[in-house]
Amino acid sequence: MCQLFALSSSAPTAVTFSFTGFSARGGRTGEHVDGWGIAFHDASGCRVFIDERRASDSPLAEFLRNNPIRSRIVLAHIRKATQGQVHLSNCHPFVREWKGRHWTFCHNGDLGDFQPRLNGDFEPVGSTDSERAFCWLLQELRARFGASGRPGWQQIAYALAELTPRVAAHGVFNFLMGNGEALFAHCATDLTWMARRHPFPRVKLVDHDLSINLSEANRTQDHMVLVATEPLTHGETWTRFSRNELKVLVDGAEVWSSQAGAAIASVLPARGDLADAIAA
Amino acid sequence: MCQLFALSSSAPTAVTFSFTGFSARGGRTGEHVDGWGIAFHDASGCRVFIDERRASDSPLAEFLRNNPIRSRIVLAHIRKATQGQVHLSNCHPFVREWKGRHWTFCHNGDLGDFQPRLNGDFEPVGSTDSERAFCWLLQELRARFGASGRPGWQQIAYALAELTPRVAAHGVFNFLMGNGEALFAHCATDLTWMARRHPFPRVKLVDHDLSINLSEANRTQDHMVLVATEPLTHGETWTRFSRNELKVLVDGAEVWSSQAGAAIASVLPARGDLADAIAA
Repeated sequence: MCQLFALSSSAPTAVTFSFTGFSARGGRTGEHVDGWGIAFHDASGCRVFIDERRASDSPLAEFLRNNPIRSRIVLAHIRKATQGQVHLSNCHPFVREWKGRHWTFCHNGDLGDFQPRLNGDFEPVGSTDSERAFCWLLQELRARFGASGRPGWQQIAYALAELTPRVAAHGVFNFLMGNGEALFAHCATDLTWMARRHPFPRVKLVDHDLSINLSEANRTQDHMVLVATEPLTHGETWTRFSRNELKVLVDGAEVWSSQAGAAIASVLPARGDLADAIAA
Repeated sequence: MCQLFALSSSAPTAVTFSFTGFSARGGRTGEHVDGWGIAFHDASGCRVFIDERRASDSPLAEFLRNNPIRSRIVLAHIRKATQGQVHLSNCHPFVREWKGRHWTFCHNGDLGDFQPRLNGDFEPVGSTDSERAFCWLLQELRARFGASGRPGWQQIAYALAELTPRVAAHGVFNFLMGNGEALFAHCATDLTWMARRHPFPRVKLVDHDLSINLSEANRTQDHMVLVATEPLTHGETWTRFSRNELKVLVDGAEVWSSQAGAAIASVLPARGDLADAIAA
């Protein structure tokens, strides 16, 4: 199984501290040695770094640990290959453009028998079940919203809440998806989250002998949500997602969540009022 | 105007030497200070590094000058903004997936009044004329080949030879396009190329006080073609493209070229035999 990490933040934030702990799982404290990757969304811009080497001793990972890139949405992945060989084309995050945005995607799990019909709108480059699932999700989103303007996160959230169980029926489907506006995080089996805000504590990495006083790295008005397969820090409260929970994070806060089969536990009005809400 | 650089090679090759000279044009020996980027194709995999800083003193460019990435197709760009603000989303190379391949694109020129109708298959993320032209080229390729299998470089070459003049009618359209199989290079006004093979000479960078004995960096069977807006080295023969010339480079050799309005000067059989040639 792979490891996931993500950040949604109210202001552009460097993740060098978190990435130092996370990347240690790619060979040093974890057995995830089959490549890694990280995506930084910066408004419409997006930078993705991938490497088929171990994250714990990759020169590129070392560069990123030492050169902060500030971003409001970050997704990262370290890989333990289950489907698809060790190759750059199989490293997450995967990226596609749709509706003039970069969409990024990381997956933890196994969807071996998920073989959807792909119509050519989005096709896998590599050979993973993960990229296949990502292409199918985008294809289905395009089928719903292709003829209209750019959908907001609310519309994407409703669509993903409907589409995700259809993939998850084929295996384990923990995933992160980012599009520059929002971060979508789905837990099938393993995902935790943590809201970080003033007063910021002193914390220590789980995977590395490194501590930081977060009040020195953040301003009082800053706030963010971190998501990871397993907690990254001591000194903060990480909470497990519910099973089959989909969360939407925007600007460092949870704005929506749902559970498959359950009523949508939302901060939004009911579906019929969605158009009004989006225009507001 | 921007600066372009590309490599097509018979074997995975590091471009650290060439990139050292090329990136000096991004602020040190040239005025191209509005970002830069480089794409490395590795079979189906593709890594793209972009930065909105000056290439001459960007830490990421420094990392790439010191950490060789071996690749058979490389495209690079340094930007002097003419259309679109200085932002990550406007840095070349641009990337899109089509037919299960990563397609990359860099442009030098100005296409201010090129405002094609885009149908949503591929949409610009940033605000450059360059990305708009790239999206339109892919849209038109998809319109031709969408329903069939993955087209070979021969089919792409014929289509680009037809499509390119329709863009070039709107301004200056020097471009590089890569897809992991082939490198397509079009000269409107400024592009040079150089074939490098055994016996390899000792060469010196034009933009940097650095020499290298290429026979120590290459095996006798290696061969490659380099493309650049202006020659990168002393000690080798760089040749200007003809105006409106489109070249196709595969595995380090020119395999096809054409000039708009002229008969196709091709190593291929006539168009009617194309299907046979591709199946061979």
